[in-house]
Amino acid sequence: MQIFHDLNEWVCFRKTLSTQLTLGFAPTMGNLHAGHASLFLASQKENHYTVSSLFVNPTQFNQTEDFKLYPRTLEADLKIMEDSGVDFCILPNEQSMYADGYNYQVHEQQLCQLMEGTHRPGHFNGVLTVVMKLLNLAKPHRAYFGEKDYQQYLLIQGMVNAFFMDIEIKACPTIREPSGLAYSSRNNRLNQEQKALAEDFARLFQQKERTCEQIIKQLTQKGIAVEYVEEHHGRRFAAVRIDNIRLIDNYLLG
Amino acid sequence: MQIFHDLNEWVCFRKTLSTQLTLGFAPTMGNLHAGHASLFLASQKENHYTVSSLFVNPTQFNQTEDFKLYPRTLEADLKIMEDSGVDFCILPNEQSMYADGYNYQVHEQQLCQLMEGTHRPGHFNGVLTVVMKLLNLAKPHRAYFGEKDYQQYLLIQGMVNAFFMDIEIKACPTIREPSGLAYSSRNNRLNQEQKALAEDFARLFQQKERTCEQIIKQLTQKGIAVEYVEEHHGRRFAAVRIDNIRLIDNYLLG
Repeated sequence: MQIFHDLNEWVCFRKTLSTQLTLGFAPTMGNLHAGHASLFLASQKENHYTVSSLFVNPTQFNQTEDFKLYPRTLEADLKIMEDSGVDFCILPNEQSMYADGYNYQVHEQQLCQLMEGTHRPGHFNGVLTVVMKLLNLAKPHRAYFGEKDYQQYLLIQGMVNAFFMDIEIKACPTIREPSGLAYSSRNNRLNQEQKALAEDFARLFQQKERTCEQIIKQLTQKGIAVEYVEEHHGRRFAAVRIDNIRLIDNYLLG
Repeated sequence: MQIFHDLNEWVCFRKTLSTQLTLGFAPTMGNLHAGHASLFLASQKENHYTVSSLFVNPTQFNQTEDFKLYPRTLEADLKIMEDSGVDFCILPNEQSMYADGYNYQVHEQQLCQLMEGTHRPGHFNGVLTVVMKLLNLAKPHRAYFGEKDYQQYLLIQGMVNAFFMDIEIKACPTIREPSGLAYSSRNNRLNQEQKALAEDFARLFQQKERTCEQIIKQLTQKGIAVEYVEEHHGRRFAAVRIDNIRLIDNYLLG
């Protein structure tokens, strides 16, 4: 796997790749798990080359504390990329990604008013802005995102359509632990007791036959702080907090 | 000159152009004049092909009246393009450009707070958004903008840098009538009396040896409503209104 710390080096290298060969891209914030690996494998299957990026994007954290506590596990991450057949890894620094001082931003006006958008002010501006930058840098034929962050996926697909970006956006299924808990980098911050509650969240939320109100009630009774359980686009979405750790999940209804 | 009314048709055609040959792009809102022609000629000189677009972008008009009154002169515009060596012209409709309902926007936070940004709320969001769309559609090697709209040029250059768009942005000198009045599509709306005032504006504004304050005083004495005369980035900028017609201009100092 070739690693690029310098964006200019990557941009020059990218131009040397044959236009006949396809490139798949899966951007990450590191602390990789089975969910990320599934994106790399999907890309590897459908493209000649796979590029990933590892950049903990400060502008999408609405809380400084969350950004600071976000786990940094570079060595392990690079090993997972390598083992999953990633050919190129871009490791940019903040200065090179935001030479403009985050002056230029991509905003969305509707879907950003719901769910994660309301509970994490500014979050999606940061996501859309950094994804626009990364897609223009990577210049992939296809880009891979997890359904775990389904609202994010919808917004990225919408952005790519709105700005006529010539990239196929692929959503890959959420990967879950045997308990049903969706893999998340934030799971690593759960202690044993919190982990048990997270698994309760996953189990209770998965009850498709119950209403949102019933699920909210059950979660609350377990002592899990519910931010929302809502239905949009034929899916059910949830966000909860276990102490200061925030978990999200979603699934297709019907 | 090949004309494309259908964006998909253009996108397919664009893929057939050899990657070895360069493409220059000059987007327009029509009602073309010598200023536009100079952009086409600059592009023709530096590229194998030149593409232009004609789209009166509704999102950059902060006043509906101004949008409605903006002169539509399609036949004459196509002739100017053809005579200036434009190879391809994209003529999109509003629905295809804004299938997202202007939900996705590009915003800038600093330079947009000055001059045109303060006097035309939302104007630059509309400009940056449509230019991002058009650049992604045209996929040019170089794109040409007039120095007449210098603040716009700076913002577009900033956007292209911030989002790592692989396009060279070129600023071309303002083209002026013999009186010194900068060519503008809005000049066509001036009656004889207003035109004389517009020429007074051009002449008084060009006095580099005077201060902004002195120029504001002189313009006001002539009965010209001054929105601003200010200096930024080593240039002097002005916007005035002659009755309901707004004119802008700028030049390099020193």
